[in-house]
Amino acid sequence: MALVILIIILALMEYMAFSFQVGMARGKYGVKAPAVSGHPEFDKYFRVQQNTLEQLIVFIPAILAFSWSAENIGWPGYYIASGLGVIWLIGRFIYAISYVNDPAKRGLGFMMNFFPSVLMMLGTLVCIFMSLI
Amino acid sequence: MALVILIIILALMEYMAFSFQVGMARGKYGVKAPAVSGHPEFDKYFRVQQNTLEQLIVFIPAILAFSWSAENIGWPGYYIASGLGVIWLIGRFIYAISYVNDPAKRGLGFMMNFFPSVLMMLGTLVCIFMSLI
Amino acid sequence: MALVILIIILALMEYMAFSFQVGMARGKYGVKAPAVSGHPEFDKYFRVQQNTLEQLIVFIPAILAFSWSAENIGWPGYYIASGLGVIWLIGRFIYAISYVNDPAKRGLGFMMNFFPSVLMMLGTLVCIFMSLI
Repeated sequence: MALVILIIILALMEYMAFSFQVGMARGKYGVKAPAVSGHPEFDKYFRVQQNTLEQLIVFIPAILAFSWSAENIGWPGYYIASGLGVIWLIGRFIYAISYVNDPAKRGLGFMMNFFPSVLMMLGTLVCIFMSLI
Repeated sequence: MALVILIIILALMEYMAFSFQVGMARGKYGVKAPAVSGHPEFDKYFRVQQNTLEQLIVFIPAILAFSWSAENIGWPGYYIASGLGVIWLIGRFIYAISYVNDPAKRGLGFMMNFFPSVLMMLGTLVCIFMSLI
Repeated sequence: MALVILIIILALMEYMAFSFQVGMARGKYGVKAPAVSGHPEFDKYFRVQQNTLEQLIVFIPAILAFSWSAENIGWPGYYIASGLGVIWLIGRFIYAISYVNDPAKRGLGFMMNFFPSVLMMLGTLVCIFMSLI
């Protein structure tokens, strides 16, 4: 359980680092609040942060739901979830780097976030189904 | 508990379906990342996804808080929460369909999300209050 | 635990109040859905809501992770977390008021959200580390 919480905290720290870069980009490209657009380079940093938010709302509940459901039927849920979580953390890092270079090349990082989240969601359904029979 | 987790996973799947439709709409209406606007039809799909994110940040903590607090004072929290969760899931589906047809008609779907969430939040306060006395 | 859940529900209510103000501002400044921009005053209300969403995705997992990890090593996690949570709630209120008056003056409120969240994240890491040794 501590391992899963560690992964979640690391994911939140990654997200806060992206938020911090948006703040930096506001100064660098002269985009003053409340504007959230105005310079193509700023837009990239802002979208990386926003997309991470869009991913976290799935990732955090999914990793908790899967860990709990898997442990519940005797699987090593915390370990599997943490392994998938590490892939997610690395994928998000790759996503951020490649998005800022060229938004069209965000595919690999995206996939490394998408598959762990989807696997944990489907895994949760499987574990719930198995606990009922 | 498994029932509540099932509802949360279904809500996340609904959200991922909306995200997928945003990706489709990017191609169809020629809105390239990092842009998040540029064609009125694209805007609708994007807002459905964003609004679902805005709802999920309330719905997920609310359903968990209510289930826990209600079970804690001996109420069938998991069953009540799951019932309200099903209304939420259907409401979000209606919201998405009607928003894409005409954003002005998003009221019914919105209400079917708003009331379950508010009821669970107020219900949590009631349960916490009752557990103290 | 009930105290931490109470703080989370209050944070969600604050967020819903900001969402409600966005709805009011839509009418007042004539910004029709799906548009999310179009009048500088509307933009401020919208950004307050969006920024609160961006903060909640960190605050909710952080307060739960910290409470759990701290109680786990015998610290009064629920009380410390609730104290930091109250600072967060007040900070968000100050943020909203000052942002609508002048977005450049959002610093104090922001700090009152940033530090409690960061302290709870770092606190979680410390508690996990201490539970391992």
